[in-house]
Amino acid sequence: MNISILGSGSWGTSMGKVLANNGHSVKIWTRDEKVKNNINNGENPHFLPGITLPKNLIATTDIKKATDKTEVIVLAVPSQAVRSVIEKIDYKDQIIVNLSKGIEINTGYLISDVVKDVLKSENYFSLSGPSHAEEVARDIPTSVVLAGKEDKNIKKIQKEFSNVSFRIYTNPDLKGVEVSGAVKNIYAIAAGVIDSMGNWDNTKAALITRASVEMTRIGKYFGGKKETYAGLAGIGDLIVTCTSQHSRNRYFGEQLGRGKKLDEILESMNMVAEGIYTVKAVHNIALKNKIEMPIAQKLYEVIYNDINPKKAIHELMTRNLKSE
Amino acid sequence: MNISILGSGSWGTSMGKVLANNGHSVKIWTRDEKVKNNINNGENPHFLPGITLPKNLIATTDIKKATDKTEVIVLAVPSQAVRSVIEKIDYKDQIIVNLSKGIEINTGYLISDVVKDVLKSENYFSLSGPSHAEEVARDIPTSVVLAGKEDKNIKKIQKEFSNVSFRIYTNPDLKGVEVSGAVKNIYAIAAGVIDSMGNWDNTKAALITRASVEMTRIGKYFGGKKETYAGLAGIGDLIVTCTSQHSRNRYFGEQLGRGKKLDEILESMNMVAEGIYTVKAVHNIALKNKIEMPIAQKLYEVIYNDINPKKAIHELMTRNLKSE
Repeated sequence: MNISILGSGSWGTSMGKVLANNGHSVKIWTRDEKVKNNINNGENPHFLPGITLPKNLIATTDIKKATDKTEVIVLAVPSQAVRSVIEKIDYKDQIIVNLSKGIEINTGYLISDVVKDVLKSENYFSLSGPSHAEEVARDIPTSVVLAGKEDKNIKKIQKEFSNVSFRIYTNPDLKGVEVSGAVKNIYAIAAGVIDSMGNWDNTKAALITRASVEMTRIGKYFGGKKETYAGLAGIGDLIVTCTSQHSRNRYFGEQLGRGKKLDEILESMNMVAEGIYTVKAVHNIALKNKIEMPIAQKLYEVIYNDINPKKAIHELMTRNLKSE
Repeated sequence: MNISILGSGSWGTSMGKVLANNGHSVKIWTRDEKVKNNINNGENPHFLPGITLPKNLIATTDIKKATDKTEVIVLAVPSQAVRSVIEKIDYKDQIIVNLSKGIEINTGYLISDVVKDVLKSENYFSLSGPSHAEEVARDIPTSVVLAGKEDKNIKKIQKEFSNVSFRIYTNPDLKGVEVSGAVKNIYAIAAGVIDSMGNWDNTKAALITRASVEMTRIGKYFGGKKETYAGLAGIGDLIVTCTSQHSRNRYFGEQLGRGKKLDEILESMNMVAEGIYTVKAVHNIALKNKIEMPIAQKLYEVIYNDINPKKAIHELMTRNLKSE
């Protein structure tokens, strides 16, 4: 197939490698001339160091050229940038496969809503689940979920994107998959805060468990299915983001726990920690709709109201004893 | 309260420390004269090195003396030893709080069934959830579940066992909590096998997710509730056992993945890896009742039929593509 990838960060580049190695002809769009040259020279050292990229993965800075005559467009830009990027393309009803995980702050929209809004298209799937790019690029066994209408296109993408170390399950619950993917980043930050305290394995496992309860609650508001939150895109992605050294959101939380401030941490990172935006959107939705999300709300206070992280953990642990 | 603890391993000792520090008078029974002296001298270096034990935690090798005039008996022996140990006590309807997680191989019984069988008592609760003893002993924030009939005794135990870093939720689903606690050890071994391959975070998160699906399936057979498998004693304990450096079952799996054989590994460990027994019991139950548990069954083959662990992972990854 002819496939375009929009975005040349670690996930876009890694997916480009997988698809090119699967035998597809892949064009990857980047804003950055230097990144373009690097990819075309066989490595993207800034975002995916040490990985040799195949020759049939071609980078370009021309978004029209990148999406011309392709059957599939893969979205791999930060979630707050999706709208502005897809506004630039000359869309001809290609299949959209989205890799971004977030909620648009201004609108509260999921990425599928943004795409529908801009491109008027429902020829759309979301690929999610526990899949750190750094591992996918190294062919480490990975299982993910492709969400969307279960038609012939979903089967086609499932088949063409899969290989022996990249296993794709389908799931019709697009809402549930997108909400999980976005919201889990909040808890990855909380997990990072815990990591800053030391090796608190018990605490982190309890956090992940209670986080999945909160995710299921807000998922109900968006209309996702309960089972999705117990699946690969739900608890699976939550676990990997909360435990992996590759997680940028976890890293952000670790710095936060060490007493650094929001701006200071952001300056030191060359990638986006989506959770800091998502927690804002979720905080608003939870307050407005009276959804009980004590961990998300406490994290919001730590990031934006300068509450001490240790104090926040103490408060969460000493609420009234109750049943599970 | 006057509390007896049967078993002086890491969990029994750690719980002894918590309860003594909570102000209770605690007697701990051990078979081993040396361990008795160590505990009474303020440390159990073999099982819980580096932790100073309080003076109101008294060890004895006399099980009758240990359980005399106490209101609560805490079971903290390996699950295959529970029967023979409780046969020795002079039981006077004390509240039993069980910490063991396993299934009796010969009978297929959960620990609550074994206790009912021997002591004819239902004055019984099971304490479970993500709680590695090494962390509980260091007052690292831990959240657990106390399962059993929601009567005045459960409220009493919840109150008396809790403290600011040891938070107890109650849950009436005793079956579900006991099944989770036992079965999760199987998947911790599988997680260890994955760890032997390198840092495969994506793979492990997928394993934990699919493991929770298998746990829910066998839980249905035992009569546990679905929600329990999504709670602290279910996915929570599963996560910590699959990820923590303290997990003995995970360690066992790591050695297995490195090509060592069952007997060889067991000789090198001074503690029990419960999962190697549980996988046998579960394998039998799953086969007999046609419960789909591909990971548990593959692990059984790796341990008992000498299947190569890498081959097993490959086979699990390359089954037919399907929906989640």
